[in-house]
Amino acid sequence: MNRGSPPAITLTTDFGTRDGYLAAIKGVILSACPNARLIDITHHIPPFDVMEAAFVLRQAAPHYPPHTIHLVVVDPGVGSERLGVALQHNSHRYVGPDNGLFALVLESAEPDELVRLDAARIGVSKPPSRTFHGRDIFGPAAARLACGAALSDLGPAIPALQSLHWAIPIDDTHGIRGWVVHVDHFGNCITNISRDLFQRRAAGRQVKCYVGSTILSGLQGTYADRAAGEPVLLFGSSEVLEVAVNQGNAANLLHIRRGMPVNIVFMDASESQAAES
Amino acid sequence: MNRGSPPAITLTTDFGTRDGYLAAIKGVILSACPNARLIDITHHIPPFDVMEAAFVLRQAAPHYPPHTIHLVVVDPGVGSERLGVALQHNSHRYVGPDNGLFALVLESAEPDELVRLDAARIGVSKPPSRTFHGRDIFGPAAARLACGAALSDLGPAIPALQSLHWAIPIDDTHGIRGWVVHVDHFGNCITNISRDLFQRRAAGRQVKCYVGSTILSGLQGTYADRAAGEPVLLFGSSEVLEVAVNQGNAANLLHIRRGMPVNIVFMDASESQAAES
Amino acid sequence: MNRGSPPAITLTTDFGTRDGYLAAIKGVILSACPNARLIDITHHIPPFDVMEAAFVLRQAAPHYPPHTIHLVVVDPGVGSERLGVALQHNSHRYVGPDNGLFALVLESAEPDELVRLDAARIGVSKPPSRTFHGRDIFGPAAARLACGAALSDLGPAIPALQSLHWAIPIDDTHGIRGWVVHVDHFGNCITNISRDLFQRRAAGRQVKCYVGSTILSGLQGTYADRAAGEPVLLFGSSEVLEVAVNQGNAANLLHIRRGMPVNIVFMDASESQAAES
Repeated sequence: MNRGSPPAITLTTDFGTRDGYLAAIKGVILSACPNARLIDITHHIPPFDVMEAAFVLRQAAPHYPPHTIHLVVVDPGVGSERLGVALQHNSHRYVGPDNGLFALVLESAEPDELVRLDAARIGVSKPPSRTFHGRDIFGPAAARLACGAALSDLGPAIPALQSLHWAIPIDDTHGIRGWVVHVDHFGNCITNISRDLFQRRAAGRQVKCYVGSTILSGLQGTYADRAAGEPVLLFGSSEVLEVAVNQGNAANLLHIRRGMPVNIVFMDASESQAAES
Repeated sequence: MNRGSPPAITLTTDFGTRDGYLAAIKGVILSACPNARLIDITHHIPPFDVMEAAFVLRQAAPHYPPHTIHLVVVDPGVGSERLGVALQHNSHRYVGPDNGLFALVLESAEPDELVRLDAARIGVSKPPSRTFHGRDIFGPAAARLACGAALSDLGPAIPALQSLHWAIPIDDTHGIRGWVVHVDHFGNCITNISRDLFQRRAAGRQVKCYVGSTILSGLQGTYADRAAGEPVLLFGSSEVLEVAVNQGNAANLLHIRRGMPVNIVFMDASESQAAES
Repeated sequence: MNRGSPPAITLTTDFGTRDGYLAAIKGVILSACPNARLIDITHHIPPFDVMEAAFVLRQAAPHYPPHTIHLVVVDPGVGSERLGVALQHNSHRYVGPDNGLFALVLESAEPDELVRLDAARIGVSKPPSRTFHGRDIFGPAAARLACGAALSDLGPAIPALQSLHWAIPIDDTHGIRGWVVHVDHFGNCITNISRDLFQRRAAGRQVKCYVGSTILSGLQGTYADRAAGEPVLLFGSSEVLEVAVNQGNAANLLHIRRGMPVNIVFMDASESQAAES
């Protein structure tokens, strides 16, 4: 581990923080691996919302140091036939149910290593409950990794993960149709349109953006490039297109919700001049 | 302590997380015992709701390693004559006001050791405020335990804790009347009917459950045993009867609230056959 | 650092806990300083509310041990000309945008040391985003301090911080006009009237307090000095005047909101006798 510091385990769940469930998982981990460091990513994923969990995990996980273990429990199929898995990617390890949670953080890559969790190999002391695998399987698995186990100690290799049906933008020379994939705490509306795609298609042309109840013209560099209360189109900190309102809540003010389309239209030279005159 | 790892203090309060109160307690603890590990159980107990705190503490605390210290501050009587206490049970120690908070985690047992907190013995440097004993008495007491003090260092022994008026199910050979004692973040409705009581009374018979706006027939093993959106009756991860909706919010969909009765009726053989035909 | 314990960094933001932003900052800090201890003060400051952040920081920060680093990111001007700063006060260090956040914790004192953050000196590996300085500048700066850097390693000294327009009570021999500056999680209404000012002006006289929809007579020592549900006027744990309801929510029950005036009237001897008869 890093310079002798204790192994870090991040936690991402839809458990909320009002019950004892999350704290039970933490107790189980500390009982198995007393030096583990526990870092909360979020426990406010909407219940059963695998896509939101996949998105938030991708926002946060890549910033962690090598050897970090990411425990993710958003598990609508708990107790069913769905597998539990552990995998390695970019020198991080991930543990959770096999339902698409890890699709975005993998960015279309295959995991370096992938196993199906086997309760007997993890060494859980009594039969796991059928309703709380976070406490009875995933937490113990993450604790074993933090205390030195290899992925192969937790179960047999499997060939592939379940996929996630994630929206992909549609683009041509005239524009891009994308979607709002996340509305953040500030009401900023994050789309699935990357800076790379945008720049390749825009090729330096002016742009209009149709979304919710508004039309935005032109890209800004940061929120404060517009007056307080004014809408802003910009590339946010994750390098994807974002619709915001400077010091305001864009989702509320512009009537935008997750899942709504975002239409980008590139203007040819004559249109740009007309728009500016 | 466990293999040289720092002592763990869990925190359970009704303070919420918007103010500086909770962070003030943490600062006080770290000032007195810099190596203490702080683990949040929850700070979203409804204000002054001692029963809810007792319930959540029981869900979470038993999963922690030996020597863990549980600091619990839900304290409607702060500044009044109510005592502050510290106690030992199952090699864990607990600190908080004496108002019933520890009744459920003790499960009818007497504490192995029980003392009344004495501010002078705890060694608080100035007179404690009369409105914030979490910061001025309970936090310092937990910090002293984490840094090696014995319970008897914190105050004199007392004979018994205040009791908690917790609902107990009523049962006979025909059925069980219990109550919903907790509605969790997912809307699952947790009752006070244990698997032990249920199995002893059911003796293998079929069962009907009357609760809120619905009647459930038969027990399932996990949420996913019913289709998404369907109600489920099952024993949850704490081995008590629970009314849920697979991938849905049972409290909302079935109009169930904390405190509502849950009636279990056992069917004789002829009724069971009629119900199945 | 204290007895070999890892350096502590507290975090105060308006980021909420639903997104990956906060966890990204934590990952960046742990990547740069793996032993740093991270303590959340709050992430539920209302968006862009610098005054509320300044208030909560003052409630919590002074309770931390020497050498603690306080990272505060409430940053409506991110990406604009506003500076990032780091400063030392009372053997704590503070990092964040220069927008008034640190005015209350400084209590009118000048910082012992004050620098403007310089991204090049902090050693961030790529150009910082223009929308997320918490992750790209402030977090890395706090991590460098936690791992041993001096303030002067992070940028050049500057003479002064931006000020904060904080309400000051108006007082004379007849009374004090103050304001509700914070409504806490319990609905307690915290004013800007200190015990010192109050006692100096009251000089032992009886008092009436006009606030929201109510008039309160007389000071209590703690909530439980009045019956449950009754309003209480008292000095809270921060030694400022507070309007509360014992085991109830004063803001809701007495129609009090942040920013409302609180009028204290001192009664002369004859009035006091009339009021008591």
